[in-house]
Amino acid sequence: MKVGVAGLGTVGAGLLAIAARGGLAHAGLEIVAVSARNRSRSRGVEIAPFAWHDDPVELARSPDLDIFVELIGGSDGPAKRAVEVALSRGIHVVTANKALVAEHGAALSALAEEKQVALAFEAAVAGGVPIVKAMRESFAGCEVAAVSGILNGTCNYLLTEMEASGRSFEDVLADAQRLGYAEADPTMDVGGFDAAHKIAILAAIAFRTRPDYAGVAIEGVDKVRLLDIQLAGKLGYRIKLIAKAERQGNAGRVSVGPALVPFDHPLASVGGPMNAVNVVADPLGALTFIGRGAGAGPTAAAVAADLIDVAQGRFGAPFGRPLADLSTLTKGAGEDSGRFYMRLLVHDRPGVIAAVSEQLGKAQVSIDSMLQMPVGPGPTVPIVLTSHPCPKVAILGAAEAIGMLDAVSEKPCVLPIEETKR
Amino acid sequence: MKVGVAGLGTVGAGLLAIAARGGLAHAGLEIVAVSARNRSRSRGVEIAPFAWHDDPVELARSPDLDIFVELIGGSDGPAKRAVEVALSRGIHVVTANKALVAEHGAALSALAEEKQVALAFEAAVAGGVPIVKAMRESFAGCEVAAVSGILNGTCNYLLTEMEASGRSFEDVLADAQRLGYAEADPTMDVGGFDAAHKIAILAAIAFRTRPDYAGVAIEGVDKVRLLDIQLAGKLGYRIKLIAKAERQGNAGRVSVGPALVPFDHPLASVGGPMNAVNVVADPLGALTFIGRGAGAGPTAAAVAADLIDVAQGRFGAPFGRPLADLSTLTKGAGEDSGRFYMRLLVHDRPGVIAAVSEQLGKAQVSIDSMLQMPVGPGPTVPIVLTSHPCPKVAILGAAEAIGMLDAVSEKPCVLPIEETKR
Repeated sequence: MKVGVAGLGTVGAGLLAIAARGGLAHAGLEIVAVSARNRSRSRGVEIAPFAWHDDPVELARSPDLDIFVELIGGSDGPAKRAVEVALSRGIHVVTANKALVAEHGAALSALAEEKQVALAFEAAVAGGVPIVKAMRESFAGCEVAAVSGILNGTCNYLLTEMEASGRSFEDVLADAQRLGYAEADPTMDVGGFDAAHKIAILAAIAFRTRPDYAGVAIEGVDKVRLLDIQLAGKLGYRIKLIAKAERQGNAGRVSVGPALVPFDHPLASVGGPMNAVNVVADPLGALTFIGRGAGAGPTAAAVAADLIDVAQGRFGAPFGRPLADLSTLTKGAGEDSGRFYMRLLVHDRPGVIAAVSEQLGKAQVSIDSMLQMPVGPGPTVPIVLTSHPCPKVAILGAAEAIGMLDAVSEKPCVLPIEETKR
Repeated sequence: MKVGVAGLGTVGAGLLAIAARGGLAHAGLEIVAVSARNRSRSRGVEIAPFAWHDDPVELARSPDLDIFVELIGGSDGPAKRAVEVALSRGIHVVTANKALVAEHGAALSALAEEKQVALAFEAAVAGGVPIVKAMRESFAGCEVAAVSGILNGTCNYLLTEMEASGRSFEDVLADAQRLGYAEADPTMDVGGFDAAHKIAILAAIAFRTRPDYAGVAIEGVDKVRLLDIQLAGKLGYRIKLIAKAERQGNAGRVSVGPALVPFDHPLASVGGPMNAVNVVADPLGALTFIGRGAGAGPTAAAVAADLIDVAQGRFGAPFGRPLADLSTLTKGAGEDSGRFYMRLLVHDRPGVIAAVSEQLGKAQVSIDSMLQMPVGPGPTVPIVLTSHPCPKVAILGAAEAIGMLDAVSEKPCVLPIEETKR
């Protein structure tokens, strides 16, 4: 089968390297053409043997192509146009583009189904971790109750570095940018949007629903302070950016945000740039996958696996079930509840704890543990409390009221606490 | 597609339960016939709707079957005969039988290839953990350097219980047998043979070689003493039964045996009956899968996934590559080396350490750390040492010589130390 590769960044170069040492030929796959913005850029791999196209859409239109590999990125623009052209022509598509799949997955699936070709996107989620295939095929006889994971390596690296070095988010981010671990504009990563694309894709396959990126509740790691990482650690928790999809009857909730995970949680020990996914399914039980979520090698390996699947005829509906069988995930209303962590900075004077407790009581939030720390930054001292299970709206309401108290120096930080399920 | 299920133990009953709630019907799969030894046994699932066969071979011969599911177990006998009959008739086979696949996988693959039918065995290794599919399909563009794992839940449960309760292997095993967690004859599990079947299968797919159960070096957990678990813990290690396959050029080594894993090793925190597999592949990096390796639910879910794959045409060569492309793994000769743990029981008298050190020096084994413990069982005290990397034959030779010293009360316990690779 003749393969065209659009986009020759690190992943594209990684794929050419796999091909160069025979990783695709055994399945009868041959890369014949490539496209990128800059032909002369040094990539450490030989591109002379391949037909060159400046424009990915032109590559998708070239006559003798069986599979179009899209490694351009971006939810719209040339990536989307080229994929649409390829699918419309009845050419299989393999892509690493999470934004494209999360935002336009249903429409592209419709095209792929109509032409009975593959639309494969293992590399779009968690890089080298084969979670898309597992979700689509290995859990096909199961009912998935929940998927949660660490899906953004940059955020996980930043949080791990903050904890290890005792430095602030801003300091650690600046270093990561210097070292090339974070983008010059880190918004997609630190804002939680990249992880949201990925969990929208996993939720769709897990719950047999259309991908709904717009329905993901998104919070980033930029709100996480070193103080909270340190205090959470004293309580036996680590702060992670958790992407999560939970089924609640016919409804579901898909979210990305920082949360406290207990040290014995399967995601707690996942450090640095690693990715991890935890799936709870019936009757499978709980499964955890841990691996490298980005980088040339792991991501290119995932693209190669998709290519080999297509070459060997192992593909079906892109989201596991035909589009017509996918429902729409109803948002679970008002049931967003659980245990929470709240951290306040207070001026240490008599009656503060009583005033805080009063507000929590009014909001019907019951306290599990409360800890006033002996020292704090500047003239204030931190108070940390964990709640018993309560509605999120209740604790956010209490936080609002507590933030207005005279003795409290700023709006409290509220973070959910994940429970360890086995 | 019409499915016949041979064997209605816990996994068979689990599969019928998945079918009963629609987990197979969406893929056009229908269970039509079953066989087991005892028709009247209560299984908690309805078997009246299915044609009954007393004999699995008779079921495999029944006229209107598309897929034969073998859940009988055992490397030979009726399981093997029935699978051979089914494949010879051009009927797809799905099996959970690790012994059958590890010992007769090549011959059965030849039959399946000849008839162009599936021989699928996800459930044979690590139950609900989809490692067979990942190894066969997701790593198809990669070169696997090593696979290691905790593949026997019974052994892992016993070791975890010994550590947690401070009780002996015999005590914990007796309890596990009473509770049904261990077989009345536990040899297959505690002797390492079950894990050996599983790693033989994974090694074959990983290295593109014919399965070679006879070539697996096997040691069981029955040699592990509580004392060693406790001493290893003081040094920062946990003792696990590690099944392992490592590639060394064109050669390889496949083994099962107790080993020390550092607390930060991805397999160290896998407790109780859980299974885990760690794969190191190029250019994928390291991947870890953790999940339930046995039990009705997880294993039946793996069988269901195989059935759905077959129904949707997603199958190929059973070991990932056509039989003709599978080579034979040459045993790496003399290169079995690494760091080791050695524990002696000595009569505490002057000159003991000098005598022990002398023997180690003679064998060219260099000591990394040595620790004489203040108290021990009975009249002897334990001495624990860890070596720098050395050939296994060297440290075993030293242990032999040390065991003959007057002051040493028994042959030293030698266990390999696993390194954390990321």
